[in-house]
Amino acid sequence: MAGDFRWQDGFIAVDWGTTNRRAWMVEADGRTHEILDDELGVLKVENGGFPVEIAAIRKRHGDKPILLGGMIGSNRGWIEAPYVAAPASLDGIVASIRWPEEAVGIVPGVSYRNGRDADVMRGEEVQIFGALAEGLAPRDGLLCHPGTHAKWVRMEGGAIGPFRSVMTGELFSTLSRHGILIDRLQDKVSANDDFRAGAEHGLAHDDLTAELFSIRARYLLGAGECDNASYASGLLIGADVRIGLAFGGGGPVALIGRPDLTALYAEALKLAGRDASRIDGEHAFLLGARAIAERLR
Amino acid sequence: MAGDFRWQDGFIAVDWGTTNRRAWMVEADGRTHEILDDELGVLKVENGGFPVEIAAIRKRHGDKPILLGGMIGSNRGWIEAPYVAAPASLDGIVASIRWPEEAVGIVPGVSYRNGRDADVMRGEEVQIFGALAEGLAPRDGLLCHPGTHAKWVRMEGGAIGPFRSVMTGELFSTLSRHGILIDRLQDKVSANDDFRAGAEHGLAHDDLTAELFSIRARYLLGAGECDNASYASGLLIGADVRIGLAFGGGGPVALIGRPDLTALYAEALKLAGRDASRIDGEHAFLLGARAIAERLR
Repeated sequence: MAGDFRWQDGFIAVDWGTTNRRAWMVEADGRTHEILDDELGVLKVENGGFPVEIAAIRKRHGDKPILLGGMIGSNRGWIEAPYVAAPASLDGIVASIRWPEEAVGIVPGVSYRNGRDADVMRGEEVQIFGALAEGLAPRDGLLCHPGTHAKWVRMEGGAIGPFRSVMTGELFSTLSRHGILIDRLQDKVSANDDFRAGAEHGLAHDDLTAELFSIRARYLLGAGECDNASYASGLLIGADVRIGLAFGGGGPVALIGRPDLTALYAEALKLAGRDASRIDGEHAFLLGARAIAERLR
Repeated sequence: MAGDFRWQDGFIAVDWGTTNRRAWMVEADGRTHEILDDELGVLKVENGGFPVEIAAIRKRHGDKPILLGGMIGSNRGWIEAPYVAAPASLDGIVASIRWPEEAVGIVPGVSYRNGRDADVMRGEEVQIFGALAEGLAPRDGLLCHPGTHAKWVRMEGGAIGPFRSVMTGELFSTLSRHGILIDRLQDKVSANDDFRAGAEHGLAHDDLTAELFSIRARYLLGAGECDNASYASGLLIGADVRIGLAFGGGGPVALIGRPDLTALYAEALKLAGRDASRIDGEHAFLLGARAIAERLR
C-alpha cells in the first residue's frame, strides 16, 4: 500500500454495518474524533456505490488511508473479505485484508469449524484485537461480545480460538416486535430485581421457550406485577451466559461491546459467580483499527 | 338454556380462534359435517358484531344451540369466560360456560398456578376432554397439544392438572418471517433425517439460542447441505419435548392436534424413547363438543 498514502500520518476507520455506519478520524498522534454516524448501512448502498462513498469521505476529510470493518466485507457488502479460520491472530487478519482500492482496506471476519460446530464473526474481531492490544482483554481466557448475535470467544495465546454465537439480541428484538409478548416487552430494560430474577432462572433452567410463555400467562392471571421487559431480557441473557460459560474456560470474562449490554451481561455473570471486566466497544474498535494500521506502515 | 332449544336435537360447534373460525353441525345422531371455515377470527369482528354473526349462522343453518370454544372467550373475544383453575374437570368447565345469549355457550379456558408457575389454555380443553371421553387419551398420564403454543398437560384422575406451554410454533413461525434465518426456513418441514438430527440435538443439549445461529453459520461456511427448515423445526421440537418430559410423568404421551404436528412430535418422542398416540385435533374438538352438549341436556 504505497503511493502517497501513509498510515502513520493518520487514517479514517469505518465500522460499516448492515444498517448503520460510523467513521472516525484517527490522527497521527492517536487522537480520534467521530466524523460520520448515519444509517447508510451496506444494504442501502447501490451496486457500484462504494467507490463513490469512499470518494465522498475523502473529499470531505482528506486523502487518508481508510480501514473498513464490519459487514462491508460480507457477501452483501462491497467486496467479500473471506473469513480467516480460527485460531486467528491479528497478523493473520492483517495479512487477509482485502484492498478494493489503493489504501482502502477491508478487514476480514473470522470463522470457526470443528466437526458440526460452525460459527462466524464479522466486525467483532477488530474490537477484540483492540482490547487485546491495550491489555484490556486476556491473551488466554474467555471473552464475550454481547449484541444482536452475542459471541463467546476463547482466546488462545493471543488468537481468537473456538467461539460461539447466541441469538439473544435478535430474539429479544423480534419478540418485542412480533407475537404475543409484544405488549410486555416495550419498557426499557435495566439491571433491576426483575432482570436478576430472569437471569437466575435462565442460568439455572433450560426451559427458555416455556418460561417466555409464562411471562404472558402470569400477566393474564394478574400473578404479580413485574418489569416484564427486564425479566425477559434477564431470562435470555441468563440462558446466554449459561451457554457461554459451558463453552469457555475459567477465570474472569472480558465483556466488550455497548455499555448498556455489557452492564447487563456483567450482572448475569455476577449471579453465576464469575467476575467480568467491561470494555466499551467503540473504544475497542478504535484501538483495534490503530493496532491494524500500525501493521500496515 | 331453556326455551325451544334442545341440545339433543343437534347443535352447532364453533372453534372460534384469533385469526380463523371453523364450525360444524353436530346432528342428533352424533354425525358431524363442517359448515364454516373462514378467516373471521375474533380480532376481525367489530364491537357488537358477535350477535349479528350468530344470527347469520342460525339463519343459514337453523335455530340450533351453539357451543363456542377458543379465543372467543378471551378478553379480546365476545364475552370473557374466566379461566377455570386446574385441576379442572369436564363438569367444572361445563359449570363455568358463559351464556351471552339464549342457547349460546362459550367454553372457558383453564389456568394453572403454583407459586411462580403460571399457565393458561383456551381451546385445547375441548379437544382434551373429547379425547378423554372416547378413551383416546388417558385419565392419568401425560398429554401434549402441539401448536403455536404447545401445551404439555398432566392429566390427574380425568382432570386437567398442572400444564405448561412452550412457544415452539410461534418461534418457528417468527424466525421464518424475521431475522437472519428467514432464507433458511422457507422449505416445508418433514420428519426426515435432518429433522431427527435437530430433534436429537434439542433433546440432548440446552443451547437452543446458540444452535439456531449455527444453522446460519454452517450455511455461510458451506458446511454440509442440509434441510435447514426441518433441522430447525427438529431443534425447537426436541427442546420442547425435553421440557415437556421433564415436566410430566411416565408412560406413553397422548398427542392431540394437527396431524402434521403430532407426526413431528411423535418422531421426537420416539427419539426420546417414549411411545405416543396421535389424535386428530379436529376430531377431538367435535368429540369434546359432544361430551359438553350431553351435559347441557
